Amino acid sequence: MRETDVVVIGAGPVGENVADRVVRGGLRAVIVEAELVGGECSYWACMPSKALLRTGAAHRAAQAAGVEDGRVDRDVVLRRRDSFTSGWDDSGQVQWLQSAGIDLVRGHARLAGERRVVVSGGDEEVEIVARHAVVVTVGSAARLPGIPGLAEAEPWTSREATALQTVPGSIAIIGGGVVATEAATFLADLGSRVTVLARSGLLTAFEPVAGEQVAGALRERGVDIREGIAPARVTRDEAGVQIEFGDGEPLRVDEVLVATGRVPRTEDLGLETVGLEPGEWIAVDDTLRVAGSDWLYAAGDVTHRALLTHQGKYQARAAGDVIVARATGGEVRDRPWGAHVATADHAAVPQVVFTDPEVAAVGLTAAQAQDAGMRVRVVDYDLGSVAGASLTADGYAGAARAVVDEDRRVLVGVTFVGAGVAELLHAATIAVVGEVPLERLWHAVPAYPTISEVWLRLLETYGL
Amino acid sequence: MRETDVVVIGAGPVGENVADRVVRGGLRAVIVEAELVGGECSYWACMPSKALLRTGAAHRAAQAAGVEDGRVDRDVVLRRRDSFTSGWDDSGQVQWLQSAGIDLVRGHARLAGERRVVVSGGDEEVEIVARHAVVVTVGSAARLPGIPGLAEAEPWTSREATALQTVPGSIAIIGGGVVATEAATFLADLGSRVTVLARSGLLTAFEPVAGEQVAGALRERGVDIREGIAPARVTRDEAGVQIEFGDGEPLRVDEVLVATGRVPRTEDLGLETVGLEPGEWIAVDDTLRVAGSDWLYAAGDVTHRALLTHQGKYQARAAGDVIVARATGGEVRDRPWGAHVATADHAAVPQVVFTDPEVAAVGLTAAQAQDAGMRVRVVDYDLGSVAGASLTADGYAGAARAVVDEDRRVLVGVTFVGAGVAELLHAATIAVVGEVPLERLWHAVPAYPTISEVWLRLLETYGL
Repeated sequence: MRETDVVVIGAGPVGENVADRVVRGGLRAVIVEAELVGGECSYWACMPSKALLRTGAAHRAAQAAGVEDGRVDRDVVLRRRDSFTSGWDDSGQVQWLQSAGIDLVRGHARLAGERRVVVSGGDEEVEIVARHAVVVTVGSAARLPGIPGLAEAEPWTSREATALQTVPGSIAIIGGGVVATEAATFLADLGSRVTVLARSGLLTAFEPVAGEQVAGALRERGVDIREGIAPARVTRDEAGVQIEFGDGEPLRVDEVLVATGRVPRTEDLGLETVGLEPGEWIAVDDTLRVAGSDWLYAAGDVTHRALLTHQGKYQARAAGDVIVARATGGEVRDRPWGAHVATADHAAVPQVVFTDPEVAAVGLTAAQAQDAGMRVRVVDYDLGSVAGASLTADGYAGAARAVVDEDRRVLVGVTFVGAGVAELLHAATIAVVGEVPLERLWHAVPAYPTISEVWLRLLETYGL
Repeated sequence: MRETDVVVIGAGPVGENVADRVVRGGLRAVIVEAELVGGECSYWACMPSKALLRTGAAHRAAQAAGVEDGRVDRDVVLRRRDSFTSGWDDSGQVQWLQSAGIDLVRGHARLAGERRVVVSGGDEEVEIVARHAVVVTVGSAARLPGIPGLAEAEPWTSREATALQTVPGSIAIIGGGVVATEAATFLADLGSRVTVLARSGLLTAFEPVAGEQVAGALRERGVDIREGIAPARVTRDEAGVQIEFGDGEPLRVDEVLVATGRVPRTEDLGLETVGLEPGEWIAVDDTLRVAGSDWLYAAGDVTHRALLTHQGKYQARAAGDVIVARATGGEVRDRPWGAHVATADHAAVPQVVFTDPEVAAVGLTAAQAQDAGMRVRVVDYDLGSVAGASLTADGYAGAARAVVDEDRRVLVGVTFVGAGVAELLHAATIAVVGEVPLERLWHAVPAYPTISEVWLRLLETYGL
């Protein structure tokens, strides 16, 4: 048996950040990981997907600005992806843990009652007792829908797609969300013949213009997008994968990628020993603590608050700091927007989809704000008609939408669609989080000629 | 004689915006222009310079992201520039004036005493009386330093550089500011052998890292940057231009570009008829009105408040609106950050230099904040070590600096240096203008993996 202050289960970015803040606060932390230190984001999500997307995006941006004859080499792209995943070797991350003073135990962790974690399947079987807190940061995994034959057909998930070594001649993607649209983009870039089976359309969590423009651009690049259609059966034989539908021709492809949402990785975590339900998401309060417990925390995807690396790390910082404050008798800053609560999770979550065009959004969509009972005014502006946009690309296409809470005269949601809008987003995030009144935003002058000038246009369109 | 509500002298972007706001407010406006409607920015500054810079920047960005064999064709770049200046034809802008309900008089305007403007040299000689206001928006021109022989040597200014039709084999640039560094960048892109003569260094109005990194990058691309050196004499003969120095070898080049600051275009404006000094900048209060006058306004470069198109347009919106308010007995909102004052001019001016790397800055430098008596803390972070930056470019180099007013715990200045940082700036502008406390900025989570993640790193480095 081993004792420490805090046990963190899962060494993805969220777990790493919890442990780091805890150690900086003067406590000891043990982090347990069954797979690669660095987690999904480093090896099978954010980093490899963006590495796969980036070269194609830069190529298109250059062409649209008048550069001729640029060439994207498949092998260069895959090698560049490999460099960002360190060839799926986590020694760099392990080194970082050491330098940060965090103890690593490799193996599969299960809760074993209050403050107890049993680790097995690693170097040693060990029971660890946490004096102050156990933090669950195990993340999520791809959800497989119950389509007959699908599991047996060995479908790709986000892991196989981002780790691909051979580009399939053809692929069907089931789903229409972020993973589906990003994978469709980089697979088409790499030369795959892509069919997207998106029952309810693309990027439906965003403002409608996002899905419309991304669908349009994918179609222009030869991607076959089929909406309102659901696979009825999937089979694999030597020739590849066959997808049957209720009616119509079956689809034959080399591979099938499932991108229909996520499930928490809590099936085999010992949740039942602490009164929680295995296989379920773990609900926490804004300090990331499980209701009714004074020692069990969770952060990141597994809480189902916001399934995004940056938001999980944000929760991790709050969780790490509040664990230290509670352990050391420090002040707990748990009022809204305090240092120990993840207030932004509720209505100020930023997200970028690295498709082409990119989608960048923060806060509420118009529909969400209306559903929340706000008196809302929606302001739309054509991003392509901003001078800075036309300078970056001939024929720049894009969109911008601001959602205003008319009672408070602040922005509650902003969406940008267009090439390179990823870096436009943080301005919106600061405006939403800072609750900066529109009248003050009027004095935040965008530099000319940048794409950010859309801020002026949105405010002018609003009537300032 | 002709009568109207407001006469605007100068139909650049600033004048256009004043007239537009005035007309939207229900008044009549006449705008007088001696050259092209659209002004310096449209034809000889912002637009052509950025068009000349953009293709090269996109090419470098693509190479840095793994695109191979891209080619920048000189003629393509020049043609693209031509399309953004509409071939120096202002009919599109004239059409816009008409659609906005603004009357255009072509010709040279001079003040002729209170509320009177005489226009000559155009279609007709006409005197116009303004019932409410005359607004001077004539802008600035390149300043020629008093170097013996320089004027006679027919140097290029920003106008000739941005309008270039033939790329000189070699060129010397006198100056080290924005015009000099941007011109050095696009001229080098176009294949010119560039020598920069920058007596006091590059981009000295910015944080030191800006000039350092831009100088380093220009040198890597073969630009000869000579600091601490000043031309003593310039002569031109058939073979080109010769620049002599106090000592050392003279420099022989095909052309010389002067980029040593600006002078107001007020020499021949009739300022003496209203008690002002010809050739001087026109001082105005925060409502853009000349002290002691109830009818004379100025906006844009000519006020010397902030020589930037976007800031001039910002002043124009305030000026246009306050003229309407005063003329119609409306409320004058002239408290700091009110709708009728250009408060941001004082300490929240954003600026982007479209060199490679780009420089984007808002508010005060550390030195300026200290000089202003603030208790300042400076936070630096290496932009290249942000994941989003390394994804966009192999070997990404850059810098970020935040200047914190420790008493108010708000940002008073932010500087970014790096490829593509232009669109990062508006977040900083909103933070500075919105006076969003650091503790709240902590909840503005940058999306991963974007370059904007530097915001998290800056706040972490600060100690949050």
